[in-house]
Amino acid sequence: VKYGVLGTGTVGQTLAGKLVSLGHEVMMGSRQSGNEVAVAWVKSAGGSASEGTFSDAAAFGETVINATNGAASLDALKAAGAENLDGKVLIDVANPLDFSGGLPPTLTVGNTDSLGEQIQREFPEAKVVKTLNTMAADVMVEPSLVPDSHNVLVAGEDADARAQVSGMLQEFGWPAEDVLDLGSIVAARGMEAYVTLWLRFWAASGTRILNIKLLAATE
Amino acid sequence: VKYGVLGTGTVGQTLAGKLVSLGHEVMMGSRQSGNEVAVAWVKSAGGSASEGTFSDAAAFGETVINATNGAASLDALKAAGAENLDGKVLIDVANPLDFSGGLPPTLTVGNTDSLGEQIQREFPEAKVVKTLNTMAADVMVEPSLVPDSHNVLVAGEDADARAQVSGMLQEFGWPAEDVLDLGSIVAARGMEAYVTLWLRFWAASGTRILNIKLLAATE
Repeated sequence: VKYGVLGTGTVGQTLAGKLVSLGHEVMMGSRQSGNEVAVAWVKSAGGSASEGTFSDAAAFGETVINATNGAASLDALKAAGAENLDGKVLIDVANPLDFSGGLPPTLTVGNTDSLGEQIQREFPEAKVVKTLNTMAADVMVEPSLVPDSHNVLVAGEDADARAQVSGMLQEFGWPAEDVLDLGSIVAARGMEAYVTLWLRFWAASGTRILNIKLLAATE
Repeated sequence: VKYGVLGTGTVGQTLAGKLVSLGHEVMMGSRQSGNEVAVAWVKSAGGSASEGTFSDAAAFGETVINATNGAASLDALKAAGAENLDGKVLIDVANPLDFSGGLPPTLTVGNTDSLGEQIQREFPEAKVVKTLNTMAADVMVEPSLVPDSHNVLVAGEDADARAQVSGMLQEFGWPAEDVLDLGSIVAARGMEAYVTLWLRFWAASGTRILNIKLLAATE
């Protein structure tokens, strides 16, 4: 599969690197082509890796991943262009966190809305799937770093798109039974808000290599 | 221990009933004494149970539990009176949810603040401890309803108060190692925001008898 990964930060590099290692063709997108970090990533990642603008990467990808800073995601996606996103699965892993006021960070959108919903509204022809935003980048692509079984959450309006993303997550090493489908993209509100609790879990456990497991009674 | 439990809803009745069954003296508080639900609860709970106003119950309790509707909690606690709360552990289990706009509910406070923090600011001499708001009432007092081990969260400014609440939770049946101390009451932001995700977990799993377990890597 051809992936366009928007964003050159830790999350973008981690996801793009994993996808290359799995044999996919990946273009990393940033505001300007020739971005120093992106060029260095291409060199280290090897043959099937490339880089370009947000628009280049989105056009390249059959599936597009938004791994940009949450506060800048809508601008990055507008730069990528609706014409390069329409009809595609758009995986949103960003968190709309604002660290400008110090710690703890606050959410730039929440409660009655979410970044995932904002993106879906802005690009109604894209199939937005929120996932992976509830954990550190290392855990996203190597769930076995965290002991026992634990969950990755998936939300989006299109069931086929959610299933396709579940398939990518299973390639990453997530057992199918640990992929928890929460349905509508409205669930992104809870998934994004949870990150404020995740930060507390990090502080309490002393490591960001953590995740949660949902346990529910069975009749 | 003498407990004042403010609130006659499912959570208040469940917690008050559990405390009576554990041998504690419990007064249930509501806006007016003689509240029909409270009187019925006293009859069913037996000898050490009593009821009165918010003020009566807060004065009675060596420890006070806020189990009122989150949107009404500050008013209920003002009716209880600072003079009946000062110096005491005040356990806040409420969620500031607003269902007036339909589903999903929204938070009446969040992001840069929380109900737990509002209560602590309003009653600076009380030792506010947020806990148990992240699960259904049945699970609060019978954690074994949910399979395997899972976590109850505790947050508050006073370490001794958090430890005392941990003791109460252990009486409820929570193993000490499953009580997760998140430190400062500021963590109430994440604990309250998580409830919006909890509602999605309920929908996804088809039962409210659920909870999460924190899993973290150990070096």
